[in-house]
Amino acid sequence: MACTGWTSPLPLCVCLLLTCGFAEAGKLLVVPMDGSHWFTMRSVVEKLILRGHEVVVVMPEVSWRLGRSLNCTVKTYSTSYTLEDLDREFGLIVAKYFSLPSVVFARGILCHYLEEGAQCPAPLSYVPRILLGFSDAMTFKERVRNHIMHLEEHLLCHRFFKNALEIASEVLQTPVTEYDLYSHTSIWLLRSDFVLDYPRPVMPNMIFIGGINCHQGKSLPMEFEAYINASGEHGIVVFSLGSMVSEIPEKKAMAIADALGKIPQTVLWRYTGTRPSNLANNTILVKWLPQNDLLGHPMTRAFITHAGSHGVYESICNGVPMVMMPLFGDQMDNAKRMETKGAGVTLNVLEMTSEDLENALKAVINDKSYKENIMRLSSLHKDRPVEPLDLAVFWVEFVMRHKGAPHLRPAAHDLTWYQYHSLDVIGFLLAVALTVAFITFKCCAYGYRKCFGKKGRVKKAHKSKTH
Amino acid sequence: MACTGWTSPLPLCVCLLLTCGFAEAGKLLVVPMDGSHWFTMRSVVEKLILRGHEVVVVMPEVSWRLGRSLNCTVKTYSTSYTLEDLDREFGLIVAKYFSLPSVVFARGILCHYLEEGAQCPAPLSYVPRILLGFSDAMTFKERVRNHIMHLEEHLLCHRFFKNALEIASEVLQTPVTEYDLYSHTSIWLLRSDFVLDYPRPVMPNMIFIGGINCHQGKSLPMEFEAYINASGEHGIVVFSLGSMVSEIPEKKAMAIADALGKIPQTVLWRYTGTRPSNLANNTILVKWLPQNDLLGHPMTRAFITHAGSHGVYESICNGVPMVMMPLFGDQMDNAKRMETKGAGVTLNVLEMTSEDLENALKAVINDKSYKENIMRLSSLHKDRPVEPLDLAVFWVEFVMRHKGAPHLRPAAHDLTWYQYHSLDVIGFLLAVALTVAFITFKCCAYGYRKCFGKKGRVKKAHKSKTH
Repeated sequence: MACTGWTSPLPLCVCLLLTCGFAEAGKLLVVPMDGSHWFTMRSVVEKLILRGHEVVVVMPEVSWRLGRSLNCTVKTYSTSYTLEDLDREFGLIVAKYFSLPSVVFARGILCHYLEEGAQCPAPLSYVPRILLGFSDAMTFKERVRNHIMHLEEHLLCHRFFKNALEIASEVLQTPVTEYDLYSHTSIWLLRSDFVLDYPRPVMPNMIFIGGINCHQGKSLPMEFEAYINASGEHGIVVFSLGSMVSEIPEKKAMAIADALGKIPQTVLWRYTGTRPSNLANNTILVKWLPQNDLLGHPMTRAFITHAGSHGVYESICNGVPMVMMPLFGDQMDNAKRMETKGAGVTLNVLEMTSEDLENALKAVINDKSYKENIMRLSSLHKDRPVEPLDLAVFWVEFVMRHKGAPHLRPAAHDLTWYQYHSLDVIGFLLAVALTVAFITFKCCAYGYRKCFGKKGRVKKAHKSKTH
Repeated sequence: MACTGWTSPLPLCVCLLLTCGFAEAGKLLVVPMDGSHWFTMRSVVEKLILRGHEVVVVMPEVSWRLGRSLNCTVKTYSTSYTLEDLDREFGLIVAKYFSLPSVVFARGILCHYLEEGAQCPAPLSYVPRILLGFSDAMTFKERVRNHIMHLEEHLLCHRFFKNALEIASEVLQTPVTEYDLYSHTSIWLLRSDFVLDYPRPVMPNMIFIGGINCHQGKSLPMEFEAYINASGEHGIVVFSLGSMVSEIPEKKAMAIADALGKIPQTVLWRYTGTRPSNLANNTILVKWLPQNDLLGHPMTRAFITHAGSHGVYESICNGVPMVMMPLFGDQMDNAKRMETKGAGVTLNVLEMTSEDLENALKAVINDKSYKENIMRLSSLHKDRPVEPLDLAVFWVEFVMRHKGAPHLRPAAHDLTWYQYHSLDVIGFLLAVALTVAFITFKCCAYGYRKCFGKKGRVKKAHKSKTH
């Protein structure tokens, strides 16, 4: 499941719980999860506040990056280590407790709970399970692994939520499963689109808002403008492994520094760890960088990234080819997707050598196909009838206006698993077919005996006599 | 299949075939099908012409309702009875011949060709096959029928297109199947939404533009304004069985006239047949009526309709409850959908009596739930981020700008049917499981014999001795 607590690197869910509110202004309860995911969610909440809705954000007392600057009520609650389990489905439990329509805001949902909660088919033959890092064109071996992963999800995933579900069952005074909580989601706002992700079956209540984090690049701070101006015709490379990585093992950092020194571009490396001793003159360490604005600069030649979805979308929006070093979570998946679409090169950060990084950088900078591919993806991605932020706000308000979206709830929710898969119908049809075949066979056999039985026997008798 | 020739009552497809055209203006080849379906398609073509695209409409010489007033090139071709078969996939054949990206504009696609062409799953347990008139909550018997219908489609549908495919194979100089033609569709513009139709799995290249035919009601011609003013507090009922029905058997027409005479509302009946002798004073026969504008009038109490999708959408847009007399094609499906959503009453036109119609009319007019339900559906239907016409134009231009939409083409197209259904993987996993089970069993049996074998034999020997 996605709601994995605020320190988790796994795809994360943020739930909006909505009370009624006729047309213009309503009340919203926002239960966010922390981490970089909040950055995009925050833009939706800010816009909803601007549009006059009364927003209450509920968050644990422990350090959250959110809330302070928001013009809304912020309620905190104290949490202990064990209560973090509750965090995982806290939004959803509150929704069920108060029977509130809910909107889930997520990059993706771990395990099989999106498929189950939305009743969305995901054929295992070409829809790779998340975290496997497979493309949509899987080898036989990969397809076998995909099936085994799916089996594992069904066998093991519920263990992650055991504590959360026990608490939920206690609160709701009835046994609660993950399905009970997820299946009441009115609208799924998914930070995905079919430029980054592979096309696959979807459901009408899934709204794709991938790229919601992309903004028009602002003008750069003086310091960064100066770096770019000094880079000359070769331009710059932007390097960031995201806010989760602060330090890299010394040996690895030195191998990276060595590779960076071998390209003519200036490298802006967001790194807060110890300065590698072999750092070349073309590499500038910074504690923070305006990533989106730098990627939007025409002199930016490449982006070295951990392939988190935010960074990948910023790269797509701005048309910058990538060298990707996925570390955990959905980053392997993001990197695989971009690699198969020819928009970047993926490196295994544990196994890569200095030469690997150097070659990858030179490839994405000098081989024009990478730039062409990311520019093509960029133009596809940005060509949409509604901006993702407006779409997200529209659907949150839609759920408020109509107290949910029951007309988008598929009837599959009312079937048992064997009915859904038509096992009862198939069994019945097979039984009929077998009965018909059996009766036909018996009739034919009887007819045959009637017609040829005597003859046969006579022949036999005749034969035995001749012996 | 939907492209069923211009006189067919079956759901119909209209294909746009697009040549390149960078940003602003491009060239479009439009291959429309006739009938009322053209009315909505026409609005898209008109908007595309207004936006500066060069449009060529290709149509057979025989009477088409279209084209004359359009500001574009119209090419006609002569057609014979046998060539009508070609009509069925003519768009698609041209698209394949010239390798042009195509957009299909349709209410729905007959048989299994939408699922196959778009690789869209349609679980038979809750997605009723079209023309059956089932809801999404099917009984066991209905689900069995749904499966049999699906089998029949696979066995029989290709016969309808035998001639068309033979001609296509000749033109393209290679054997051609329906799948070959349909699977190259870039975008499916489907005149459907989830207010009329039931929610079900969809694919990212399916764009739902249901209600594209609804317009803001214009002011009424004097004649109709006068009828409404004369109707007093009871208001009016609009009655039309569409443009395909001109005459009704006399007995049936009299039964209908009898029922209409028993309600206090004024009935405006679009009817070109012989005037029933028992027509009551409250019933006015007209050869034509401004249907959408009448339905938009606040004094309109009910709509008697054949449940064609255009009429149903106009009823939804304007919030007018219906008495539905479906005649053929998707009309049974439309009626069933509206009936299960509480927005109208369905009558079997062949079996209904005068009382049935009278009761149905009184129910939808006097039982407030019908009005409430259709108003709820209306507000859901009209609450959308983009108007259907704009969405249709956007996606046609998208296909022109990007020369198709290959990023929305699922990898399922590259799999064989047994790979898609993972039969090879399931077979392999079963073989592994059985082998493991067999070896485990053999090992256990061997171990058992080793440990207890002698004892057993001694016991046996001992036992046999005692006999």
